[in-house]
Amino acid sequence: MPRLLSWGCWRAALARARHPIFSAGHRGTSGGRSCARDPPAGVVELQGELDRFGGVSVSLAGLSSLDRLDAATFQRGLLAAIQQWRSEGRIAVWLHIPILQSRFIAPAASLGFSFHHAESDSSTLTLWLGEGPNRLPRYATHQVGVAGAVFDENTRKILIVQDRNKLKNMWKFPGGLSEPGEDIGDTAVREVFEETGIKSEFRSLLSIRQQHGNPGVFGKSDMYIICRLKPYSFTINFCQHECLRCEWIDLYDLVKTENTTPITSRVARLLLYGYKEGFDKIDLTMEEFPAVYTGLFYKLYHKKLPENYKTMIKNVPNSYLNV
Amino acid sequence: MPRLLSWGCWRAALARARHPIFSAGHRGTSGGRSCARDPPAGVVELQGELDRFGGVSVSLAGLSSLDRLDAATFQRGLLAAIQQWRSEGRIAVWLHIPILQSRFIAPAASLGFSFHHAESDSSTLTLWLGEGPNRLPRYATHQVGVAGAVFDENTRKILIVQDRNKLKNMWKFPGGLSEPGEDIGDTAVREVFEETGIKSEFRSLLSIRQQHGNPGVFGKSDMYIICRLKPYSFTINFCQHECLRCEWIDLYDLVKTENTTPITSRVARLLLYGYKEGFDKIDLTMEEFPAVYTGLFYKLYHKKLPENYKTMIKNVPNSYLNV
Repeated sequence: MPRLLSWGCWRAALARARHPIFSAGHRGTSGGRSCARDPPAGVVELQGELDRFGGVSVSLAGLSSLDRLDAATFQRGLLAAIQQWRSEGRIAVWLHIPILQSRFIAPAASLGFSFHHAESDSSTLTLWLGEGPNRLPRYATHQVGVAGAVFDENTRKILIVQDRNKLKNMWKFPGGLSEPGEDIGDTAVREVFEETGIKSEFRSLLSIRQQHGNPGVFGKSDMYIICRLKPYSFTINFCQHECLRCEWIDLYDLVKTENTTPITSRVARLLLYGYKEGFDKIDLTMEEFPAVYTGLFYKLYHKKLPENYKTMIKNVPNSYLNV
Repeated sequence: MPRLLSWGCWRAALARARHPIFSAGHRGTSGGRSCARDPPAGVVELQGELDRFGGVSVSLAGLSSLDRLDAATFQRGLLAAIQQWRSEGRIAVWLHIPILQSRFIAPAASLGFSFHHAESDSSTLTLWLGEGPNRLPRYATHQVGVAGAVFDENTRKILIVQDRNKLKNMWKFPGGLSEPGEDIGDTAVREVFEETGIKSEFRSLLSIRQQHGNPGVFGKSDMYIICRLKPYSFTINFCQHECLRCEWIDLYDLVKTENTTPITSRVARLLLYGYKEGFDKIDLTMEEFPAVYTGLFYKLYHKKLPENYKTMIKNVPNSYLNV
């Protein structure tokens, strides 16, 4: 089913929608019209920020007299506002509620709102007013875990661990979940150090796994990425809470053992291939790029591209695409 | 900061914790002890399911007489239970609350609980009781978007679009956000069809971008993956809601134009390299594997590995790792 608008399209609107303005009175927004005009007497007047996709966003955090507002009055005000927004052709309502004001959640749910997401000290509910099924963009769908395959080319040794608290004590690469805002390579280096005491640096991205329905991901999917790291310390000092064992072993031994996971065995073989025939055969290298719309930077990983392809001249006059 | 336990370790416990049992009386759990014994008179008795990592999970959905329970009584019961759990050495509490019972959220927040996540018709709050900072596993941190670089080797044509509602009308590959539980390649094929009307099939994964702090991702990060697709229909019928223009153009023209995003230009050059020197130079191929602990299957993407490396014999007797 198609989302309402393409991924990128929502971003600018949502950036605004995350910090909407709300008051108990009328408000003229720059670019947006005020909402829920002329509510019935005795009902709180809800006003939201319009976005350019036809949605309206309401934040209870900005509402004056919030502490004195009771749930029933809020519900009447919300119902009136919904009727107004619907008559104006709005397609969705975003409702942001501070955790200590969560008494307003159930009244909103009774009017059809459901949780879009919640984190820390606030929740966001949505109500779809448009035609057909809800096509609002979803919240995050994936956990990202990263492991480090720390390989020393000089000795052909690779760093492996056995997790504590596992039913089967299989050898694997050290790794763990990304922290919020953390780059893939940084997660690998951090997790390797925390689990094993080994210092290393990022070399390349080797493999990506996608899995759905795994218990323990709170119903979400996970992405598990293995990076090639180069060690610059060698004395193991492993975390006793996380690991049962930690060893430097010959890469051939890891390739041969049955006492490992399928993914570890596969990546060990990939490393052996790279070791024997050149790591350019297996590496995805990383480069930083500027984002067009936000001015932010991102990291892009792909097979190494020869320099002459990177520098191939752009903007040939009368090019088809510049017409 | 290290999470409480490694990623995998939490899964089994969380699988149980997602469906805890809760009642107003004592309950002997298999493998877990009952919690919050002997509450003060006049206070509701909360009981949860223990997990093997020292946490306790309480679901309000299973509580009898929930509709008659007021927020103040709940808060007293929760406070007594927390004191009991703390004295028993529990390290964390997971509290699952149906949306229509959200009147219990603020009382829990007043006792230190915060949102872990919420979706659809329920929320989950957590309280960390262990030493040091909260080390519970986080909720999903990434959105996953996928684009399809649909390339016809016979004509050297590539399929590109211009998004509607963009400030800059740049050429890019069609794509969008993954649906829950959807594989990367399936997202690419679906989005290409929805946006352009072109039917195609998955060939390989070409690039992965990770970006943080992008507005419109609700404060989360995003992963944007570009796949190489092979077309098997060629008549464009593009979505007027999403796209302004949609064209098949010569790959060289896409490489040369300035009217595109940096990532599109880079992947166009990567495709040109693959077209001229073999797609094995740029492709990450996909293979399905069984997961060790769950019995589920996952998809793994990496550079193609020669067959002799894949079939290299395992389990050499007396191997170091089998000792």
